[in-house]
Amino acid sequence: MTAQQPDSTTPDPLSADLLRKMNAYWRACNYLAAGMIYLRDNPLLREPLQEAHIKERLLGHWGASPGLSFIWVHMNRIIRAQNQEAIFLAGPGHGAPGVLAPIYLEGTYSEVYPNKSEDEEGLQAFFKQFSFPGGIGSHCTPETPGSIHEGGELGYSISHAFGAAFDNPNLLVVVAVGDGESETGPLATSWHSSKFLNPIRDGAVLPVLHLNGYKINNPTLLARIPNEELASLMRGYGWTPHFVEGDDPLTMHQLMAATLDRCLGEIHGIQQAARTSGEATRGHWPMIVLRSPKGWTGPKEVDGHRVEGFWRAHQVPLAGLHNNPAHLKQLEDWLRSYKPEELFDDAGRLIPELKELAPTGNLRMSASPHANGGILRRALRMPDFRTYAADVGTPGTTRAMNTKPLGAMLRDIMADNMRNFRVFGPDENSSNKLDAIYAVSKKLWLCDYKPEDADGGELAPDGRVLEMLSEHTLEGWYEGYLLTGRHGFFATYEAFVHVIDSMYNQHAKWLAICNEIPWRAPVSSLNLLITSTVWRQDHNGFTHQDPGFLDVVVNKNPHVTRIYLPPDVNCLLSTADHCLRSMNNINVIVCDKQDHLQYLSMDEAVKHCTKGLGIWEWASNDQGAEPDVVMVGCGDIPTKEALAATAMLREAFADIKIRFVNVVDLFRMQPAGEHPHGLSDADFDSIFTKNRPIIFNFHGYPWLIHRLAYRRTNHANLHVRGYKEKGNINTPLELAISNEIDRFSLAIDVINRVPRLQATGAHVKQRLRDLQIEARAYAFENGIDKPEFDQWTWPL
Amino acid sequence: MTAQQPDSTTPDPLSADLLRKMNAYWRACNYLAAGMIYLRDNPLLREPLQEAHIKERLLGHWGASPGLSFIWVHMNRIIRAQNQEAIFLAGPGHGAPGVLAPIYLEGTYSEVYPNKSEDEEGLQAFFKQFSFPGGIGSHCTPETPGSIHEGGELGYSISHAFGAAFDNPNLLVVVAVGDGESETGPLATSWHSSKFLNPIRDGAVLPVLHLNGYKINNPTLLARIPNEELASLMRGYGWTPHFVEGDDPLTMHQLMAATLDRCLGEIHGIQQAARTSGEATRGHWPMIVLRSPKGWTGPKEVDGHRVEGFWRAHQVPLAGLHNNPAHLKQLEDWLRSYKPEELFDDAGRLIPELKELAPTGNLRMSASPHANGGILRRALRMPDFRTYAADVGTPGTTRAMNTKPLGAMLRDIMADNMRNFRVFGPDENSSNKLDAIYAVSKKLWLCDYKPEDADGGELAPDGRVLEMLSEHTLEGWYEGYLLTGRHGFFATYEAFVHVIDSMYNQHAKWLAICNEIPWRAPVSSLNLLITSTVWRQDHNGFTHQDPGFLDVVVNKNPHVTRIYLPPDVNCLLSTADHCLRSMNNINVIVCDKQDHLQYLSMDEAVKHCTKGLGIWEWASNDQGAEPDVVMVGCGDIPTKEALAATAMLREAFADIKIRFVNVVDLFRMQPAGEHPHGLSDADFDSIFTKNRPIIFNFHGYPWLIHRLAYRRTNHANLHVRGYKEKGNINTPLELAISNEIDRFSLAIDVINRVPRLQATGAHVKQRLRDLQIEARAYAFENGIDKPEFDQWTWPL
Repeated sequence: MTAQQPDSTTPDPLSADLLRKMNAYWRACNYLAAGMIYLRDNPLLREPLQEAHIKERLLGHWGASPGLSFIWVHMNRIIRAQNQEAIFLAGPGHGAPGVLAPIYLEGTYSEVYPNKSEDEEGLQAFFKQFSFPGGIGSHCTPETPGSIHEGGELGYSISHAFGAAFDNPNLLVVVAVGDGESETGPLATSWHSSKFLNPIRDGAVLPVLHLNGYKINNPTLLARIPNEELASLMRGYGWTPHFVEGDDPLTMHQLMAATLDRCLGEIHGIQQAARTSGEATRGHWPMIVLRSPKGWTGPKEVDGHRVEGFWRAHQVPLAGLHNNPAHLKQLEDWLRSYKPEELFDDAGRLIPELKELAPTGNLRMSASPHANGGILRRALRMPDFRTYAADVGTPGTTRAMNTKPLGAMLRDIMADNMRNFRVFGPDENSSNKLDAIYAVSKKLWLCDYKPEDADGGELAPDGRVLEMLSEHTLEGWYEGYLLTGRHGFFATYEAFVHVIDSMYNQHAKWLAICNEIPWRAPVSSLNLLITSTVWRQDHNGFTHQDPGFLDVVVNKNPHVTRIYLPPDVNCLLSTADHCLRSMNNINVIVCDKQDHLQYLSMDEAVKHCTKGLGIWEWASNDQGAEPDVVMVGCGDIPTKEALAATAMLREAFADIKIRFVNVVDLFRMQPAGEHPHGLSDADFDSIFTKNRPIIFNFHGYPWLIHRLAYRRTNHANLHVRGYKEKGNINTPLELAISNEIDRFSLAIDVINRVPRLQATGAHVKQRLRDLQIEARAYAFENGIDKPEFDQWTWPL
Repeated sequence: MTAQQPDSTTPDPLSADLLRKMNAYWRACNYLAAGMIYLRDNPLLREPLQEAHIKERLLGHWGASPGLSFIWVHMNRIIRAQNQEAIFLAGPGHGAPGVLAPIYLEGTYSEVYPNKSEDEEGLQAFFKQFSFPGGIGSHCTPETPGSIHEGGELGYSISHAFGAAFDNPNLLVVVAVGDGESETGPLATSWHSSKFLNPIRDGAVLPVLHLNGYKINNPTLLARIPNEELASLMRGYGWTPHFVEGDDPLTMHQLMAATLDRCLGEIHGIQQAARTSGEATRGHWPMIVLRSPKGWTGPKEVDGHRVEGFWRAHQVPLAGLHNNPAHLKQLEDWLRSYKPEELFDDAGRLIPELKELAPTGNLRMSASPHANGGILRRALRMPDFRTYAADVGTPGTTRAMNTKPLGAMLRDIMADNMRNFRVFGPDENSSNKLDAIYAVSKKLWLCDYKPEDADGGELAPDGRVLEMLSEHTLEGWYEGYLLTGRHGFFATYEAFVHVIDSMYNQHAKWLAICNEIPWRAPVSSLNLLITSTVWRQDHNGFTHQDPGFLDVVVNKNPHVTRIYLPPDVNCLLSTADHCLRSMNNINVIVCDKQDHLQYLSMDEAVKHCTKGLGIWEWASNDQGAEPDVVMVGCGDIPTKEALAATAMLREAFADIKIRFVNVVDLFRMQPAGEHPHGLSDADFDSIFTKNRPIIFNFHGYPWLIHRLAYRRTNHANLHVRGYKEKGNINTPLELAISNEIDRFSLAIDVINRVPRLQATGAHVKQRLRDLQIEARAYAFENGIDKPEFDQWTWPL
């Protein structure tokens, strides 16, 4: 990166020749953007336009495209002039034509997809595939070289951009921000991301807020307030705004060039100052407000309605072309206004004097390895997770906070990977007992410090732990960080992970498509620890009780989705180790942070987690025989209650045979044909039997287990307990009782389902009900559970 | 409301006497807030504090409480002085002690809960119940009189506040905004709500951004930027900020009083100007930045660590009281610092000179009928939905856009309910074909106008349709509007409704609790039309295909949740009519907006929707016999494909007996014991048979049907088709084929499952597979489906 500061006082930085060429390049982009929406043939208009050349169904979005190409063309100049490493994110939804066009023109598209070659035949194929069955969409989907962001993704453009910039000191991430997406919550708070950018260690993000003024049918809010108010908003967010406004292309080129020069100067100034002094402070980074007409250079008017500069330019400005010669003529005039014959040579290739305006090789934004992060990804240096093991003797006799040793492991991972690993959390890493990590790297903080922060604040300008009370922003940063080839870990409260349901959905879809694109190298998995779980939200109450994220997770592509519910410390460590090494998955780990009983030694845990589910022999007494009942625990607290029920039953009925099963890897429940982790039916039957009652105590909503297992042989005997929206201010056991996942309810379930117990079991059931009533009464009187109920009341 | 403008130049508006009294009232609040966290006995400290008086488990959140009470006490002065109708929303999570305290002191709590009487015994019960099993939580839950917002609800305080203010011209909604929640996306964009407030017709919202500086373990962003930057941010959002900062109570009282006077003056000024001139313009409404110490007036230091004014004050500032006499002493000193003996009389009741500081009756914010909106709710004047019926002759021969007549119905509802009905949508009401409504009321717009807006912009300063590209904000407005006793309708794209999953969850939980609170009058249901559905997102591609919101919906309380999938116009109208009349539900209606085949006359539709599911005799030929197969359609497009498959099968196999069932009310599938709409097993068996194959063609993810129906007699023969994450850029039929919900796949499913067809069916299966291949080839070549596939290829 050059440290030279461009002269920001030059009013017209582009020479007449360069101006002409850049405008021609932009014309070529606009021609391509329009061409891909309309043309299935005659791509260079070498014959008069006919209906037969037009696609039957016109799809795609013209409105945002010219503005996106405009930014791209200007970035190309900067990249060439300064050898500036850069990538481009297109925030506006459906803006792909404006991005695909320059990608094709700079040659990358043809390199990645050889049949979309740089000639007339390739151009025709390139046009036809757009928004066409079997082709590509109107977002910057994974099929788009250079893209890490689909666009229209519900306001995540800026957070994705920052994720890409973290720990990439030489990278400039240019992000076109749509004025439509700017109205979303995730985008509105993501402007604060600059408060988390360390100018020494991180790269820069240059947002270009593209005020084209309209959404589908409405003006945008930010385009209809005075500039002064908008500038105030941006300054309030901590940015330094620069305005580029107009509609005359040649004037706008000069303005944009001068403004970009100024912005690059400011960026390098902030970086140089910090890097020279070694002092990282919060930068008031530049951003650009680009106000240009929607559908710029397109038809001004159609059928008497304004189109350019209005919402009618949003999608296909000229529709109804069939049997409408006037429209066909208007389309031809519009396309010819770009003078394709001046832009492309006989073979249909961009002419050399324009071709040379683009950077070459990896400096092309479309070819940046950062945007195909798997190429740059290096495996984490990982400590041996066994060294953090909890010492477990007899199962169920020792206790530990399940997430605490994981904190120590994350600390050591951080220590060994101080350039490509980050931990994310919304103000909850300490609450979630992961605070050991601060010994190695604190929470990044670049805003004001106060003396009291020294007392446990754990804040530092070079911290690598990112905490902000916005799950959207954290998830966006994390995704951007992963997609550019790095690693991370995100811990969050279970009840609030629904905030990012749609981000999970979109990332899962992105990965599912990437799995089918040979040139996309695999990236690190997204690891999501869900803690402070429902069963310990007794005191926070009903609003904090929601284990339903798993119901969202299971709907997505089975090659992407993974769910683990480790019951204790050693299983959690083994699971986390596996997840941190995996690629192209979303790993959801559910484990509570509180002090819990421990069950498995590290060796046992590794074996158990490798199998994903298994019989716990030490808790079972059906060895060598078919059991009366299969008792299953899935999740930490449900496992404890299931074990306690098992112990009580074995005490109450001397001859009862119980098989105890624990499930860590939830997708083992699904048939092998439906999920790569699914257990074969034979193995499933050998564990769950073909005809014995199964009492399945589940962490989440009980129906999820039926959804996974409804095809299993013994499904008719599968009886699932789980959370069913019964809760208010409780104690943990009271909450369990309300939802019938408690030891007493489970034992009664067994008695009700094992025929030979029903005769002798009546008095046991009565005793269990009495104990349940006593337990509730104690809690209501004392505000706590009887301590004995946080363990097993009876030994096995 | 008085129009008198308070004198904003008085520096110290409070007389010495009033100052003393207001501070005493605030001390009483703080005493109560601390008391409810700690005390189970000795509520007035009439004996020395002992361990036995302290709760066993200390829960609750002190940090935000004093600031919340501070605002409340000051609002009380304004309300009394100006007879100002007002309600109070507490945004900060877990701030309930600071709200419950003044509610108790002004008598409302005891009126609603007589055993929490205004005496020592009542106070003891009031203290003990807080964060205690069987008691109330530390949010402003539905049990809290005067609350329409739990707090800590993930950033919805401002949008809820605006929902309450719309169409309530005399109401002032004071909303304490937490600086923690301010970092969330939903809160960050909700500041723009003021751009949608009409000063003639609507009330006012006064946000008090409470900078107490800290979240659980971190400083907040907004508290650690310069005031100038924060002021710039607020002005950029369109507000006029006023700062109240400090920690000396007496100084702060004067400052707050003067600032509130000024703000009320500005509010009334804006309202008067607009109401006098009749011209509604966008107001730059006042807001207050209140910077006060976290845990204000609590322990300054504990065990050598700073507490007041630091994050350590967040929850319980003094923990570990048992076996710790020093802490116990410090707690006693702290509690006694409020001098309860000066505040309460012998009986334990607030002394009269303080009592009279609060407003009385319905002017108390805790007793406002607006906060128990069901009291104010009046049923909508509803037109006869039958008048919008589509004219349907032979089923499946006519076509209509399913949502278009609904737009006409909403238009006429709007016309008859211009003060208590609103329509919400994120820039998509036209796209969703509901634009008929603009004939009666346009989209509210108070920002800049441009001449071109006149051409189809449908904008007006008095519009009652609210469109902003933030599902969070819309949902928040809508909830606030409903909870204050009004009605509405919200239409949104299916793929993006996941954005508000957690808002749905919280509102469902709120309603579930309200159903158990006798004094909460029922409110109108939340009606959510989900359109632009997965099966018509073939062209927008994979990111726009997600019918999974239903999987979130079904997890919540069955007394709240409703899901309808009307297959045609008349069923949609009947469903919408039902939903708009219902109360305390969340009604999710799934129906696509495009041109679709029509099936039922209005009479038939009403009957069908009333039953919720039923046999379509005209499509069935099993009359008087057990069918070979039950074919089920649920959702518009799946129904069409299932009908086409039925037609093909009946042509191919002369003797096949098919029963055709359509499901509108999804919860009919669940057993009657699990959902109030659940069908009895006998009825279910009579329709779905006990042993015949069922081919169920479903709109959403197929597993949801198994989750609902796994207990049904014939579940083993239930074969469900639905969306399974197979999609990219397709045509509608191609998308259906990829997910096997198309006519060909369904017909093959039937042949595979009806034993007597298997011998003769091989050639039919081959023919179906050939047709499928031809259909795909046509789409890939032409970019559209063969027109014949958008209807039935063979007549019944």
